[in-house]
Amino acid sequence: MFDTIKEECGVFGIYEPTRTDVVQSTYFALYALQHRGQESCGIAVNENGIIRHFRENGLVPDIFTAERLEKLGQGNMAIGHVRYSTTGNINRANAQPLVIKHVKGPMALAHNGNLTNAYALRREYELRGAIFHGTSDTEVIAYTITENRLITGSIETAVEKAMEKLQGAYSLVLMSPQKLIAARDPHGFRPLCIGKTEEGAVIFASESCAFDSIGAEFVRDVRPGEIVVVENGEMRSIETHCGGKSAMCVFEYVYFARPDSVIEGASVHEARLRAGAFLALEHPVQADVVIGVPDSGLDAALGFSQQSGIPYGVGFIKNRYVGRSFIQPTQRMRENAVRIKLNAVRAVVEGKRVVMIDDSIVRGTTSARIVNLLREAGATEVHMRVSSPPFTNPCYFGTDIDSKDKLIACKMTTEEIAKHIGVDSLGYLSVNSVRQIAKNANCDFCDACFTGEYPVEPPAEMPKDKFEKMIPKK
Amino acid sequence: MFDTIKEECGVFGIYEPTRTDVVQSTYFALYALQHRGQESCGIAVNENGIIRHFRENGLVPDIFTAERLEKLGQGNMAIGHVRYSTTGNINRANAQPLVIKHVKGPMALAHNGNLTNAYALRREYELRGAIFHGTSDTEVIAYTITENRLITGSIETAVEKAMEKLQGAYSLVLMSPQKLIAARDPHGFRPLCIGKTEEGAVIFASESCAFDSIGAEFVRDVRPGEIVVVENGEMRSIETHCGGKSAMCVFEYVYFARPDSVIEGASVHEARLRAGAFLALEHPVQADVVIGVPDSGLDAALGFSQQSGIPYGVGFIKNRYVGRSFIQPTQRMRENAVRIKLNAVRAVVEGKRVVMIDDSIVRGTTSARIVNLLREAGATEVHMRVSSPPFTNPCYFGTDIDSKDKLIACKMTTEEIAKHIGVDSLGYLSVNSVRQIAKNANCDFCDACFTGEYPVEPPAEMPKDKFEKMIPKK
Amino acid sequence: MFDTIKEECGVFGIYEPTRTDVVQSTYFALYALQHRGQESCGIAVNENGIIRHFRENGLVPDIFTAERLEKLGQGNMAIGHVRYSTTGNINRANAQPLVIKHVKGPMALAHNGNLTNAYALRREYELRGAIFHGTSDTEVIAYTITENRLITGSIETAVEKAMEKLQGAYSLVLMSPQKLIAARDPHGFRPLCIGKTEEGAVIFASESCAFDSIGAEFVRDVRPGEIVVVENGEMRSIETHCGGKSAMCVFEYVYFARPDSVIEGASVHEARLRAGAFLALEHPVQADVVIGVPDSGLDAALGFSQQSGIPYGVGFIKNRYVGRSFIQPTQRMRENAVRIKLNAVRAVVEGKRVVMIDDSIVRGTTSARIVNLLREAGATEVHMRVSSPPFTNPCYFGTDIDSKDKLIACKMTTEEIAKHIGVDSLGYLSVNSVRQIAKNANCDFCDACFTGEYPVEPPAEMPKDKFEKMIPKK
Amino acid sequence: MFDTIKEECGVFGIYEPTRTDVVQSTYFALYALQHRGQESCGIAVNENGIIRHFRENGLVPDIFTAERLEKLGQGNMAIGHVRYSTTGNINRANAQPLVIKHVKGPMALAHNGNLTNAYALRREYELRGAIFHGTSDTEVIAYTITENRLITGSIETAVEKAMEKLQGAYSLVLMSPQKLIAARDPHGFRPLCIGKTEEGAVIFASESCAFDSIGAEFVRDVRPGEIVVVENGEMRSIETHCGGKSAMCVFEYVYFARPDSVIEGASVHEARLRAGAFLALEHPVQADVVIGVPDSGLDAALGFSQQSGIPYGVGFIKNRYVGRSFIQPTQRMRENAVRIKLNAVRAVVEGKRVVMIDDSIVRGTTSARIVNLLREAGATEVHMRVSSPPFTNPCYFGTDIDSKDKLIACKMTTEEIAKHIGVDSLGYLSVNSVRQIAKNANCDFCDACFTGEYPVEPPAEMPKDKFEKMIPKK
Repeated sequence: MFDTIKEECGVFGIYEPTRTDVVQSTYFALYALQHRGQESCGIAVNENGIIRHFRENGLVPDIFTAERLEKLGQGNMAIGHVRYSTTGNINRANAQPLVIKHVKGPMALAHNGNLTNAYALRREYELRGAIFHGTSDTEVIAYTITENRLITGSIETAVEKAMEKLQGAYSLVLMSPQKLIAARDPHGFRPLCIGKTEEGAVIFASESCAFDSIGAEFVRDVRPGEIVVVENGEMRSIETHCGGKSAMCVFEYVYFARPDSVIEGASVHEARLRAGAFLALEHPVQADVVIGVPDSGLDAALGFSQQSGIPYGVGFIKNRYVGRSFIQPTQRMRENAVRIKLNAVRAVVEGKRVVMIDDSIVRGTTSARIVNLLREAGATEVHMRVSSPPFTNPCYFGTDIDSKDKLIACKMTTEEIAKHIGVDSLGYLSVNSVRQIAKNANCDFCDACFTGEYPVEPPAEMPKDKFEKMIPKK
Repeated sequence: MFDTIKEECGVFGIYEPTRTDVVQSTYFALYALQHRGQESCGIAVNENGIIRHFRENGLVPDIFTAERLEKLGQGNMAIGHVRYSTTGNINRANAQPLVIKHVKGPMALAHNGNLTNAYALRREYELRGAIFHGTSDTEVIAYTITENRLITGSIETAVEKAMEKLQGAYSLVLMSPQKLIAARDPHGFRPLCIGKTEEGAVIFASESCAFDSIGAEFVRDVRPGEIVVVENGEMRSIETHCGGKSAMCVFEYVYFARPDSVIEGASVHEARLRAGAFLALEHPVQADVVIGVPDSGLDAALGFSQQSGIPYGVGFIKNRYVGRSFIQPTQRMRENAVRIKLNAVRAVVEGKRVVMIDDSIVRGTTSARIVNLLREAGATEVHMRVSSPPFTNPCYFGTDIDSKDKLIACKMTTEEIAKHIGVDSLGYLSVNSVRQIAKNANCDFCDACFTGEYPVEPPAEMPKDKFEKMIPKK
Repeated sequence: MFDTIKEECGVFGIYEPTRTDVVQSTYFALYALQHRGQESCGIAVNENGIIRHFRENGLVPDIFTAERLEKLGQGNMAIGHVRYSTTGNINRANAQPLVIKHVKGPMALAHNGNLTNAYALRREYELRGAIFHGTSDTEVIAYTITENRLITGSIETAVEKAMEKLQGAYSLVLMSPQKLIAARDPHGFRPLCIGKTEEGAVIFASESCAFDSIGAEFVRDVRPGEIVVVENGEMRSIETHCGGKSAMCVFEYVYFARPDSVIEGASVHEARLRAGAFLALEHPVQADVVIGVPDSGLDAALGFSQQSGIPYGVGFIKNRYVGRSFIQPTQRMRENAVRIKLNAVRAVVEGKRVVMIDDSIVRGTTSARIVNLLREAGATEVHMRVSSPPFTNPCYFGTDIDSKDKLIACKMTTEEIAKHIGVDSLGYLSVNSVRQIAKNANCDFCDACFTGEYPVEPPAEMPKDKFEKMIPKK
Repeated sequence: MFDTIKEECGVFGIYEPTRTDVVQSTYFALYALQHRGQESCGIAVNENGIIRHFRENGLVPDIFTAERLEKLGQGNMAIGHVRYSTTGNINRANAQPLVIKHVKGPMALAHNGNLTNAYALRREYELRGAIFHGTSDTEVIAYTITENRLITGSIETAVEKAMEKLQGAYSLVLMSPQKLIAARDPHGFRPLCIGKTEEGAVIFASESCAFDSIGAEFVRDVRPGEIVVVENGEMRSIETHCGGKSAMCVFEYVYFARPDSVIEGASVHEARLRAGAFLALEHPVQADVVIGVPDSGLDAALGFSQQSGIPYGVGFIKNRYVGRSFIQPTQRMRENAVRIKLNAVRAVVEGKRVVMIDDSIVRGTTSARIVNLLREAGATEVHMRVSSPPFTNPCYFGTDIDSKDKLIACKMTTEEIAKHIGVDSLGYLSVNSVRQIAKNANCDFCDACFTGEYPVEPPAEMPKDKFEKMIPKK
């Protein structure tokens, strides 16, 4: 909500046995996945091998009007995408799904993640004459698949070969004239799961909440390294890249995913409750009420309350209409900006010792303002507890934790941060605990942003806007 | 959120000692009051006696773009309005503030409430040659004030005289070339309060949460029957209509108002906690978890949990982007419509005996669908508790509880309703208890929708779209 | 096109024997009348006595989308309006048709013209308690009709009575629940004519070109002072205000009307040819080519050529897409602004002595720029001929020739103007000739803007924005 | 205007010595070139090697709002494009300028024309791994340049090499980080000319009218086969592809270009006058008036009149607001559709023998309707004269005369066509004459659409939507 880490994308794909309103299903599913990316969205539909698509900057319900959906028409396959860009450059050319024509016809591609060798691959293709329309990794993936499609007999084999070359995080959904394909990188950094309907549709989505929204059923997660091919209504797996050690982003549980999603067998909501409970154990405090910063701090606050016995309270009201863009306040109003979105409930905090739970601290500015709201509403003490460890390392696998100089935990000790944001005490969840929040999850985790232990070699350099600024001398 | 009672309006007014960005303050305040009306919104600004305005169907952040706000310009007074219409007829002509020119110059008027003698007054003015552009009561109020302005020396005296004639519920903010005036009907059906800023601005708003959003301070409520006049920076009261028995709508506490607002000295959030606690006492049940239907059932659920000792849980996730209009699902998707907005959290309810709290039941259709979500997510028992008594009477004072034939409680017993919506047990808050939820509130309440005891004689007939359909024979 | 006189409005009304797509007919008719007003437009439709309407600032094809037209629905009567405001204040509240409810039900009203006693009437109504939403004369007319409707048995009698009170120019189309009525002021300042279709529709329009656009047939002009009532498919006349001396605005023929319209029996196109021919007789010149300033100077140029024997040429190309709003050029581009709209054809004027015909000169600025285009394109001499006499008096009857200080002819002699705009010679059409351009027209003319001889007493004062600025002291 | 041949595109480029408002100049120039393509438009600006762009379906003044232009910002180079697509597939992916990143950085490309070997080239690149985002030839050109950029030392040499491979019609403007380049195919099928301003800007445009609109001066045409490079304010030529026989599309003079443009030294307006004069000589007729079908038939009508001595008349009024999209009329209105755009002037044609001039007949349907307008307005005879020869062959060089089965002249004799469209006589301009209309033009012409004599070998097959429908079996 405020000054926090951003997920890059959500993906979706559907295969129906017959020509039907796959576009509408995609629309509602993207609506359910909207929290994974609010910058742009897109839908591509496949009707007898003809792929139509539309993508634009904006939110799903704003971009896809009834008229727009009708123009997309019907089909028996569709894929969709919601996107948050990691760069300031909100370029329409980067919106997805990417729809291209290559040697074997049209292909549509939706991608969540980040390649660690995108720059090197792009350079390689450029040196062979490739042209790029945007700056996203997705075009690089498209070239890699196309390159292999030239020398293989099927699109799925091309994907399989391409995965030998692609490094980093990618959860892909792609559509050829005849097939719907999902693929997940061998570490499984980003979630991707499989659903179905009673009528026989096969569905892929970044999170299981998308299945619920359209009345579909969760089947299982796509395995790290797995390629799932749907053709003529049949689903089959290619598992040549499976079997390595997985490294699911633990921050999906802490913040990114919707609490009603289940990822790798673990409930996101429960993971947050557990994070709160661990926090209570690791950083106990004498207080009168536990409150969460909406929306993602609420579950952990409840877990903290349950573990500690300190009553749970509703300390903040968030304006329901936040999310819509609104005008920038003038200087005079600026310092009140946080109040436009969030208000403290005086009746809950006045005269109380308050434990305030949030999922993370990035720069600290917003935390300071929120703490101030509580002080003004009469809280006598404010103890902040954070349901994840301090960020101290950039992420190369699909989030925008991209440089140390923005991260407050790289520059200050916990005590300094506590002072900076004006709390009486501050406690972070330990790395050891964060690894245990997703109880029973059938995967290992990437916690490199907290530990610096990267599952994959990070790129030597990883400039933002890397391709934008490449201006030759001549 | 679903199939529930609608508030009709929110009003706001601001007087600044000097020409400044009153329009922006109004914008942010209306944003905070958006929950009181999502159908249309408007702002009128007064710059040296010239009143500019804009109003349109839509939400505040959608209608008031930066360009639009800039066109409104600066001034030293402004009023604003958000509106929900009680009729299906979303007529732009009824958007407010109403801005008119009359015998003494321009006047802008924003109104929350409903006159019980609007029809009779309108007829009276029409028989004297009046013409009406819309069907709202606000035009009737404007005529009544104008009529009295002809025979009085000031706008405030005209308002005072007009109040002798106006019957029913009205919380008004109005602006003449030189003055900002607030007035509340003698029963004080709808809230209206006074705030100020350090720089000397005087502010009126339907709810105190609007003050918080712009960094202003709550001063006090406008008293039932009071007229507050701001002129040359001074505020004074006219109290000739004060002193009667008040009748604040108790449903403001149950559902309409934002939990962070304080009305007549009572916290809305606390009132809901108390409603939940009373419910636990009146309708105890053996269960494993208490959950609330978002958003307005959450506080009462927490109160129920605290009183009963049954753990509080997050049973539902509401899509954060609901509120934006989205396309109507096709027939095939229709039955899943509730899932687009709301999803049950399986980890919380599976295998559990669930107490589900909501603020009210209107038709019952949506409740049945929500209960079904819980069943499908594995709840073994569902006990519904409603934090208000059954609606059995129409409201004539500014909400859309307008006819008995839509109200399920007029047609079925509690047992029948329980069966209809598929719960194992159902309990409503008693009338006696609802009267006590707003602890320490310095007012009496209107609970006519539950009891049929109207503080003011209801109109003999009160057709919806009453003026639309009045077609003379000739 | 540039810096010229603006017409205020165009009106339209249709009565169909059965419920049908009257809205669409109105749409296409307004499209044909768009030249009479580009500021705002509106349509009101009557379906069984229920009047729905929409009006907004903008051009007909931009405002009335398919979706908007569909919302208006069908009916058996509709009226429409296009508007150009004479004030800078483009207030949406002044858009027409005005749709109101009064003592006998709803009424919709579209008006072209200008009352000379609007100020006095408005004051009179205000002193009786009237409130006004906008500043247009149309609201005054509505009050006058409503006032009389109270004391008469029918809407048409109310109109008849109202006309005793209304002074100045008005061509009205109005719609009651059962009737469609057209009325024209006793002098017939503004045109209004009657058409029909084979299927039995009765139609009113400002100009006959609207009939052609929808495949209807011209029947006759509404007579000055006549009220035409359509009810149950029958048309009847009220002629109590007929019989006075008519005073049709002669500038309708010179500039306002479309050349394919026929007004009072005279072709507009022919009138312009005659104006050109008279000019050739009155101000002969030795030259090589005669060109017109598009669009309204073209016909007169052809007439001048035919009379003088000097060849007619296409001296200018006007950008076909002018009319759409475009961004304001920066300072550097400003002096080229006229080139964005108009370009000289070098092949036609290079090395030639050119006669350039325009319909009028208002301030002279644009004429100077256009002349400069010809010089730069190589014209050796430029002789300007103007197909109307010099404006020296304000118009009070529906155009925006409103004050002497903007009119160049009030401040300079013809020779001075010639020098100012840089032409070798300049000749205006004489007043005597302009009176004869509409050959065989069955009416007399108002030429007060040229002569100062007003057919109706002009108002003592006629401030622009007259009602906007009326701020009482208290 | 109706059922006529469409030009495909207009291009523009500007190089300013310093960073300035090149975007605005491009905007106004595209506005002047809007007649060459109304489907989509785009602008790309180069600021220190960073290229920003925006392109969208719609007209220039609708797409490029002040806000949009401001976002594009300033720079010292910009290119622009207006487009009409030859296929029904209005795909946003095909809008131009195409902006890509390749081995040497970004490149922006705007193209008018049509490659005859696009299909073969595209196939060749696809077989080497290329991916295509749209279906336009422009992507093929981009690949060809990129391919050569890999093996050459500069962008201009890459263009020079690319031109060895590109066949057909192309007038290109392209922008690299440092250079602005214009290139025209060796036959010079489509126009492209060079302008300058006093401040030192170098400008390229499809037509000279674009220079006039921004106050620039015409310098000369780009020669067929010439590459013009602007770098550091200096302009130089590469002429290795010059010297062949030119083949300028003669239909540019007949219909496509604006009359105020000068192409290859010949005035378009004069060419049309001459076409009319030749027609009068080849197909004389006894008549009372000569009229043109707006807009492109007007000049030829004047030429016919001057040659024949039959008076010139304004027979039709075209609605000035045509060009804006308007709603589709219902069935009942459909037969009147032509009347919405065009109306006959009864005063001019009633009782007259009329010669009606149009620039071409494609399918004949619209001609029949227009002739009918004249008959209904009272014309006693209608003699149609067409200012070009009959179309009997498809065009492969950038217009949409694409298949014989739509061309009426392929299916009927002139007599049959005359009967079909209801005229008393019909005469086409001879091929011999059309070759002489552009007097003194320093080029030869392509008249293959009339003669079938193609200057370049046409492709064996040339399917429309050729790349859309290419669906592999597997």
